[in-house]
Amino acid sequence: MDATTARQPLRTRSWWGWGWTDAHPDDAECAAMGALIPGTLARPLPVPAVRDLRIGGPAVEPPPSLAPLVTADPADRAAHAMGKAYRDVARALRGRPGRIPDLVARPAGERGVADLLDWASAHGVAVVPYGGGSSVTGGVEYRGDAHRAVLSLDLTAMRRVLEVDTGGRAARIQAGALGPDVEDQLRPHGLTLRHFPQSFEFSTLGGWLATRASGHYATGRTHIDDFVQSMRVVTPAGTSGSWRLPASGAGPSPDRLFLGSEGALGVITEAWMRLQERPRHKASAAVAFTDFDAALRAVRDLAQSDLSPANCRLLDPGEAALSGAAHDGSAVLVLGFESAHEPVDTRLASAVSLARSHGGRHDGNTGGRGTAGTRGADAAVGAWREAFLRMPYLRDGLARMGAVAETFETAATWDRVPGLIDAVREEVGAAALRATGHPATVNCRLTHVYPDGAAPYFTVIAAGRPGDEAALWDDLKAVAVDVLHRHRATVTHHHAVGRDHRPAYDRQRPGPFALALRAAKGALDPHGILNPGVLVD
Amino acid sequence: MDATTARQPLRTRSWWGWGWTDAHPDDAECAAMGALIPGTLARPLPVPAVRDLRIGGPAVEPPPSLAPLVTADPADRAAHAMGKAYRDVARALRGRPGRIPDLVARPAGERGVADLLDWASAHGVAVVPYGGGSSVTGGVEYRGDAHRAVLSLDLTAMRRVLEVDTGGRAARIQAGALGPDVEDQLRPHGLTLRHFPQSFEFSTLGGWLATRASGHYATGRTHIDDFVQSMRVVTPAGTSGSWRLPASGAGPSPDRLFLGSEGALGVITEAWMRLQERPRHKASAAVAFTDFDAALRAVRDLAQSDLSPANCRLLDPGEAALSGAAHDGSAVLVLGFESAHEPVDTRLASAVSLARSHGGRHDGNTGGRGTAGTRGADAAVGAWREAFLRMPYLRDGLARMGAVAETFETAATWDRVPGLIDAVREEVGAAALRATGHPATVNCRLTHVYPDGAAPYFTVIAAGRPGDEAALWDDLKAVAVDVLHRHRATVTHHHAVGRDHRPAYDRQRPGPFALALRAAKGALDPHGILNPGVLVD
Repeated sequence: MDATTARQPLRTRSWWGWGWTDAHPDDAECAAMGALIPGTLARPLPVPAVRDLRIGGPAVEPPPSLAPLVTADPADRAAHAMGKAYRDVARALRGRPGRIPDLVARPAGERGVADLLDWASAHGVAVVPYGGGSSVTGGVEYRGDAHRAVLSLDLTAMRRVLEVDTGGRAARIQAGALGPDVEDQLRPHGLTLRHFPQSFEFSTLGGWLATRASGHYATGRTHIDDFVQSMRVVTPAGTSGSWRLPASGAGPSPDRLFLGSEGALGVITEAWMRLQERPRHKASAAVAFTDFDAALRAVRDLAQSDLSPANCRLLDPGEAALSGAAHDGSAVLVLGFESAHEPVDTRLASAVSLARSHGGRHDGNTGGRGTAGTRGADAAVGAWREAFLRMPYLRDGLARMGAVAETFETAATWDRVPGLIDAVREEVGAAALRATGHPATVNCRLTHVYPDGAAPYFTVIAAGRPGDEAALWDDLKAVAVDVLHRHRATVTHHHAVGRDHRPAYDRQRPGPFALALRAAKGALDPHGILNPGVLVD
Repeated sequence: MDATTARQPLRTRSWWGWGWTDAHPDDAECAAMGALIPGTLARPLPVPAVRDLRIGGPAVEPPPSLAPLVTADPADRAAHAMGKAYRDVARALRGRPGRIPDLVARPAGERGVADLLDWASAHGVAVVPYGGGSSVTGGVEYRGDAHRAVLSLDLTAMRRVLEVDTGGRAARIQAGALGPDVEDQLRPHGLTLRHFPQSFEFSTLGGWLATRASGHYATGRTHIDDFVQSMRVVTPAGTSGSWRLPASGAGPSPDRLFLGSEGALGVITEAWMRLQERPRHKASAAVAFTDFDAALRAVRDLAQSDLSPANCRLLDPGEAALSGAAHDGSAVLVLGFESAHEPVDTRLASAVSLARSHGGRHDGNTGGRGTAGTRGADAAVGAWREAFLRMPYLRDGLARMGAVAETFETAATWDRVPGLIDAVREEVGAAALRATGHPATVNCRLTHVYPDGAAPYFTVIAAGRPGDEAALWDDLKAVAVDVLHRHRATVTHHHAVGRDHRPAYDRQRPGPFALALRAAKGALDPHGILNPGVLVD
């Protein structure tokens, strides 16, 4: 038993919903939330049970050599059937989950992964790589019936930090390590990967790499891509290992082909990752704005300054109210600075001053000043943080009330950001009203900001369509994706393409790049077993 | 006539050597330099003349529709036969340049590029994309005879900044714009691409992108890759255009496949590039070290600090002496800070203080303090900068004396850097002594530093092997490349693979990535006309 399992000995992961079962809202909480949204159910849908799914036996059996790595346990298979998008939860609640995989494999190392791929290639078995299972875009769900059977390749038995280069601030980490696995093993070295997506507890390094996750910093190097020193990837055509290099100009970057490949080109087994020293100095503050457009300009100026805030998240009035950061109709900018070396109060003060010059209001109260561990004083910052981690659980509670509650994110250049946000609010709101007869909530926050643009992140809460909630969401999402396309905003900033975003992705990516990617897929996965339906056919 | 040609109306580019003919050292200067190096010639080799090459007619004729874009002028063709590596210069001096292309084309836009590729694909004509022609790795030279003819595709007629997004700090720039073209057109907007490689005057945006050039900053975002917002690339299979996005997580990055593709996958025609505000505050300083290993540790600490120097170049004692930065056997660290927003003196002082804590000596004199345009006070910094720009001209002067004078660069993680530098010095020095009977100079500087490693850049000056200088250099380079490979240091940090580095690149890149790249090449360039011999076969 390692440190991580020892820390949380009694908690159980939900097979159908977000995170830990003991963190789910109970029936009374669900009902209380549902009462706030006109048009939802009178009482919560029951928590779904695996036994109701009537899962049959697997269509294939692994050879004896692989049997120790593989299970056909129905509960395990059910838990690997889907990711954790709203539409996955809604389908599970209605007893219609995605295709249940025939087998779940948990290899202990690269050799096991390679053996499984060899067997799957020879027998036409689809392999769906699975990390923490937190995909919100259908990334870990098999669709269709072109394969003889489906194997969910769960990498979480490969969760160790294998080497740490303290002087060079890097570590070799297995792909199946969940966020806490990574940080627990790096902490004794005074180092951190500092990758803190909302899914931190329930997503893995391999998943972050395969989906080009963000969560590092709100400015600068926002995506995990930039922290990769080298990677190992097992493909049906052999194992790819890049050299540990701080930088290289030798041809197109090999790592960048596998980053974002979503399991379609190979299975990432480990990576040398660039680390940070643990921050010793932190400071945060919240700035309120009456004028959202002025707040956008403030955030753009901050992104174009030298100040490099670690957090720079702008909540629109609805999002600020939803998270408890403000209740007076203000937009709220949550700012955070940190450093391993020097106090950051001066940078924070400069940022607050810049925000004020755009009409921002700050009460002089800053949080987390001084060394790390000090509790932040700013209530808005704290409220937002707690709401952030609690949000997916509340989403599932709303889903039990038959409501639609989901998020999606994008990115666009600054010239397009204001019009894009307005259009999403208007068109998705109007579509929800048409479909349900009730007004919907469409909020926006900027999660990441760049000198040349920003990543708006939308929250949609609407009444559902009883018995047909997932399809209703699909309809609303189609409206949203159409707005994104017209504004040339990416279909995803950091939640990947998966299966849900395929049509939009196919329209977005350049045609010749699609040709190249398809050719690469054919060369590395000639039998087409790797995560079929993702990225290329 | 545009601003750029007006600025330098009378200067002539050398067809065989670096840069402007009027900047070449004259015979007396060459002789004086040669006298410093035992074993060189008594008098300089004559400047080579195109007429001595006896260039025949082209093997193909373009169709009338393309004729206005194409020339068969011998001088033009000779100037497009090779890049500007030492081995190119040495071969030209001995009257043995690389294969002279049959034709040189200068399309005025994307349509012309596409038409030329269509024609070349249909007629088996090799197309070698050509920007400023400053390749030092054989990137613009056709080798072999598998094609019916060779077309050098010169993009410098496409040199305009087409759009500027001032608020979003970005510009759409044609690929054939040379460094001064770019900066001259951005200056009125208060913006800069701030890409200043040594070849700035003689290299293009398209060349920088195709080779993943560096030159931006000595720390942080060192390569041009990170400044690309979107690109257009003409391939024989169609034109690829990515969306302008500040960030995206939609599949593997399309741009990253073409960045570093060296003309083998397509011809980059334009890009939206992220820009900087022009710096208003600058400060620089030089710090001397007696102990080179201590200097390495200082530089590593600087790279791991929050200070982000724009320049952070460490010259070893030989390099410091060669450039005039120090003559007492010290290593010299050249530091530079800049900002568009705030004075940088504090950051400079912190950096100098950090360097002192590792035994660095600083006389308290810093240069360039205050607003831009102020002349730096620090003689070492100024000496180094001037030597930096003059170096390639002096290299050619030494070549005329029959000497070997060349550079190469790499990158490695910090744990490998000291041993790598020692091994290159020893093994290349020993090989030169064996080959020529004279001791050689092997110097090193760090041009770019990272939290996890550094980019050592080596200068080799040795007596030649009369009449066989290029082959001697090939022998020495092979020794160097073998050292790099044993130390798992990249064959190139920013000078690309070209044809010279192909064998080492083939050993360095992961096998499955090579399969994917070959497949992508086959899909985009089915007739194999694009820069044959580069990256993949």
